[in-house]
Amino acid sequence: MDRDNYHSRIPEPALRRLPWYLSYIKLLKKQGYGKVSSTQIAQKINVSATQIAKDLSYVNVSGKTRVGYDIDELTAVLEDFLGFKRMHSAVLFGVGSLGAALLSDSGLEQYGLKIYAGFDVDPAIVGQKINKIPVFHSDDFALKNKKLNAQIGILTVPPDIAQEVADFMIAGGIEAIWNFTPFRIRVPEHIVLQNTSLYAHLAVMFNRLVKDDE
Amino acid sequence: MDRDNYHSRIPEPALRRLPWYLSYIKLLKKQGYGKVSSTQIAQKINVSATQIAKDLSYVNVSGKTRVGYDIDELTAVLEDFLGFKRMHSAVLFGVGSLGAALLSDSGLEQYGLKIYAGFDVDPAIVGQKINKIPVFHSDDFALKNKKLNAQIGILTVPPDIAQEVADFMIAGGIEAIWNFTPFRIRVPEHIVLQNTSLYAHLAVMFNRLVKDDE
Repeated sequence: MDRDNYHSRIPEPALRRLPWYLSYIKLLKKQGYGKVSSTQIAQKINVSATQIAKDLSYVNVSGKTRVGYDIDELTAVLEDFLGFKRMHSAVLFGVGSLGAALLSDSGLEQYGLKIYAGFDVDPAIVGQKINKIPVFHSDDFALKNKKLNAQIGILTVPPDIAQEVADFMIAGGIEAIWNFTPFRIRVPEHIVLQNTSLYAHLAVMFNRLVKDDE
Repeated sequence: MDRDNYHSRIPEPALRRLPWYLSYIKLLKKQGYGKVSSTQIAQKINVSATQIAKDLSYVNVSGKTRVGYDIDELTAVLEDFLGFKRMHSAVLFGVGSLGAALLSDSGLEQYGLKIYAGFDVDPAIVGQKINKIPVFHSDDFALKNKKLNAQIGILTVPPDIAQEVADFMIAGGIEAIWNFTPFRIRVPEHIVLQNTSLYAHLAVMFNRLVKDDE
């Protein structure tokens, strides 16, 4: 869907499925299992065993057809492959309702995303801290980022300034944008773009609910 | 990707693009425009004019090839079609870091999602309010939901209890589950399932950043 696909050897749909496998084998571990086969994963997750084996062939893990994968090894390999064990530095633009909510979500840090600062222009918010994360004025971004060196910029501004703020972040050194706005921003080819539109997901859900009622 | 696709006449990828168009034409409106053509939308968004015209053919709007669409009419039709103007009632299970963050995000209400209650088992949280939304004990869900009549259940519990809590919500009358956990839950055919895994999106972003560095 996004233009950056060709960078990765692993296809995006496969990459998106890996966290499901990780999540499931962690559960098996808790239940006392030591080994897991792709057939076993397939029974619990809506993906065929063949597809699972293929997806896992992209990561460097040794599975034996009969015995299956060692859960500890597969967990470590997946977490490493998915980048959850390396800390990635981020800043967030637009400390409104959703922005402040994301700053409050300490769960992201467990998955390798550390937000060092929020940026906004609202004097009521600038200078405050949310979940111990300072909020600076957007004008200070380029200067602050020389120190912070953030790779990732989280975009939670109003949609009508989404493009402008994205350009501003990129000018300040951001390499990847996590776009939560419903606005379809454009970025240069070397910039990684990830769209997460909660509102688009809501729309899909609402639409299906209506169809079910008919 | 999800099993519920066949319910909808509009294909999911098209449905997911509609909020982008809505967001863009709202911006044009702010800038003083009254009409918009699919070509004009295509210039700003990474979608061809043909695709846009096709996507918009699913919604009941009259576009004239030369003149384009009336922005006010298209806005109203899209908002109605996407369900953003009707309020959908929801509850949230798992008032941890992400759950509390979603309760705090008043923005969802602007898109038609009203969260009436949170549910958890932690005595430190049960009985509290977040953003004026009460948090009840999970055991009280079936009883509370007779009154609340929530259609949508937001799932933000730890992944190892995601399936169990999903089953519990469905037993209590929930018709759609918005799953934020990285766990791949299974639901009966008549239940709408929307997966929004922030962690899967993080993984895609991290993976592309690494590939870019190589």
